[in-house]
Order: sequence, then C-alpha cells, then structure tokens
Amino acid sequence: MNELCHEIISSRSAYDSIQPKYCQLPKGHSGKHSEFHYLDHLRTVQKSVADKIKRDSTMTTGAAWKSAEAGPNRILRWVMLLSDSDLKHYEIQMDKLKPQVVAKLREKSATYDDCMAVAKKLTWLVYQMNEAPKPPQDIREYLENYFGKMVSGSTTCIICKEKLSFSLFSKAQRGKAEIETGHISPREHNAENVGFAHRECNIAQGNKTVLEFYDWIRGIIKRVDNR
Amino acid sequence: MNELCHEIISSRSAYDSIQPKYCQLPKGHSGKHSEFHYLDHLRTVQKSVADKIKRDSTMTTGAAWKSAEAGPNRILRWVMLLSDSDLKHYEIQMDKLKPQVVAKLREKSATYDDCMAVAKKLTWLVYQMNEAPKPPQDIREYLENYFGKMVSGSTTCIICKEKLSFSLFSKAQRGKAEIETGHISPREHNAENVGFAHRECNIAQGNKTVLEFYDWIRGIIKRVDNR
Repeated sequence: MNELCHEIISSRSAYDSIQPKYCQLPKGHSGKHSEFHYLDHLRTVQKSVADKIKRDSTMTTGAAWKSAEAGPNRILRWVMLLSDSDLKHYEIQMDKLKPQVVAKLREKSATYDDCMAVAKKLTWLVYQMNEAPKPPQDIREYLENYFGKMVSGSTTCIICKEKLSFSLFSKAQRGKAEIETGHISPREHNAENVGFAHRECNIAQGNKTVLEFYDWIRGIIKRVDNR
Repeated sequence: MNELCHEIISSRSAYDSIQPKYCQLPKGHSGKHSEFHYLDHLRTVQKSVADKIKRDSTMTTGAAWKSAEAGPNRILRWVMLLSDSDLKHYEIQMDKLKPQVVAKLREKSATYDDCMAVAKKLTWLVYQMNEAPKPPQDIREYLENYFGKMVSGSTTCIICKEKLSFSLFSKAQRGKAEIETGHISPREHNAENVGFAHRECNIAQGNKTVLEFYDWIRGIIKRVDNR
C-alpha cells in the first residue's frame, strides 16, 4: 500500500462539506496536490478512457432529478450515503423520485475511499489490457503497490473471461460503448469487486452476481441439453 | 388452417390506406366482423394480457418521433415496411431519427399477415401456460387449427426453457413486467419465431438468436471451468 499525502484539495463543489477531496499522491510528493494523478498519462493517450474511469468510479448512473424518471444525470456515489432528509439540504428530493429510481441510486452508493480505490484498480486493469499503452514507471509502481505486479494482456472481462483489448474503448454499437465497468456483485462498489466487462456481458449479468449468473446459465444449458 | 372471412374492417386509422384490417373470424361466421375475436375471452380474464398480445404482435417498440431519441412511442410494424419517402406522407421523418433508432424500427417491421399470425400464436401459448384460464371451445379449436393441440402447462420460456406461469403477467420488478414477448431470432417477427420469455432471459439474449445465445453461454462456462 502507498502512504498518501492526503492533504485536502479544495474544490468548488457544493458537496465538499459532506466529503472533502484528498490528495492521492504519495506522501512527500513534489508539485501540486492531485486526486487522480495516476490518470494523467492515460488522459494524454485517450482522454475518454481516463474520464470514464473517473466517472464510473465516483458517480452513480443515471437518474434525472427533475422528472422522477431514470435519466442521464449522475451524482457522486458518497452523496447517496446521506439520508433523505440530509439530501434535502442539497435540493435533492428523494421522495419525488420513483421507488425503483431511489433503489437504483442507493444501491450505487459507496464511500469516498472505496471510490478512490476503484479508480486505481480500474486504471491498473486498463494498463494490463491487450494493446494498452505502457504506463510511466512512477504510475506503474504506484498502482502495483496496491494491486500487485502488472501482467500485459492479462485483463479479462469479469463475466465471460475473454481477454479485453484497449481498442474496445473506442468501439461502439448503436452509440453504446462495447466495454463497461462491471461489478462481480452488482451491489458492492469497491476495488475487489470491480473490473471491466463487455457491454453485452454486463447486460446479461443484470442484477445477479457473477456466480449467480454462472449458475443460471448452467441451468439453461442443462435444460436445453436434456430436451 | 382456418378459412377466414377476410372482410375489410374499416377503422379511422390514417394507415388504413397502406394496409386494410381484415376480419379474422372463420368464413361464414355469424355476428360482427372482428380482427382479434380470439382475444375476447382473455380480455375478460385479464385485459392487460390481451392488450399486450395485440400490442406486441402489431407494434414496434419505442422510438419517440419528436425527439430523435429512443422513447415510448410505438408504430404499426407494417408501416415500417414503407420507404423513407413514403413515410413522409404520414409525417414520419425517418431522416430526423438517429441511425440506431432507425435500425431498431426497421428491424421490427413485419407484414400484416405475419403480425396476425403472431397474435394468434401468442394467444395459443398463453392458454398453455401453468395457471392459465381455460379457453372457450370455439377459440380453442380456432387456435388449434393453426398450431396444433393445446397441452396445459407446456409453454416454456423460449430462452431458458423453464415452464411459464400465467401469474408472471401480473408480477413486475422495478416497474417492468417479468414476462415479455421474445423472438428466437430477434430479426424475424413471424409465428414460428415468437414466444414468451422471462424479461431477464430476453435481456440476456440481446440481439443474438437463441442458438447464438446458447453457444455464447457454453463458451463462458467452458472458460470459467478451465481456469
């Protein structure tokens, strides 16, 4: 594990009073404080991938705050840890949303520390995809200190176990990216539980855990073969 | 097969000039002409199921005509057989829609006759579900003339092959019905190719054929077991 600088980074976010942002650089680092310094290199290679890691790690998926319908807006995952009444101070009216939207948002809540760890884990995984760029030495060491030695070409879809290629990030079908952030258990957002998955695998998994998904498809194959 | 009355039933639909509606009752029937007489009994038992069969058989799934985004509006499947320029006469501007929305709509096009056959097939399948109501004798005979003898409790999910219960129609998770109309090949809307599926199975199938889906999940199981 890395010993971190952990200085508070001030931002203009209304949610800073709930949860300050901390510098994630190693203790005693030189230069500016930074929350996502390990994404700096990836950002120069393919900005959309760095943005995706930051977004998927820290934000819930869609729920439109104005319409009570599911929609494109996102909110910080740790904000979703607050009670309905605390959220009213931030003009978030959970009771105006449909119950299924509330359930979806609450399910995606996670602590700030878990979100930081998820972003690092996803970055570590990206660098181990086929065709991925090579990380600068300092970033490699920083990430390996958390998750172990990087092995080029070792990152697989957490669901179908096929090797994932970095080039999938720029491919899209019907406007949807072919690679998504996935969860071994869909209700746990932490470093142990996240990874990348093909979009089609992620959709097929639904709200099952990966193990439940395997049991389910084994059952299907068994029934199909016994007919 | 039934020999049908096939009298034109006039309606106020703007699309009648594209495709008239035909009476589907047996030739020489008494009483009023009807396009969906075989749904009359089901409508008295559970109106939503009869409505669903009619809707899924004849209408495409959502595409909002005003926003170019996918949305809740539906259109008759046979209208989607017309060319872009013919559709302009009906104030449908295909070129204003996103390409992926157009593709989805065009994929769901089907002839009037195929849609009529699909509605009959789905009705025949519903009556063979566990816990399904018993059809009146005339409806039973009408449907059996098309698709063969009904066997109570024999309707399975076309994907996972588990038996389906009529009670699933009234169950919903997060506002979504647990049972959907499915297609063995998602791009063919005809009686041979349709059936019912669990919502989760239908989602997992995606735009694969059922056979492609089985091959895909067999591959997953193989990779998981070899690790």
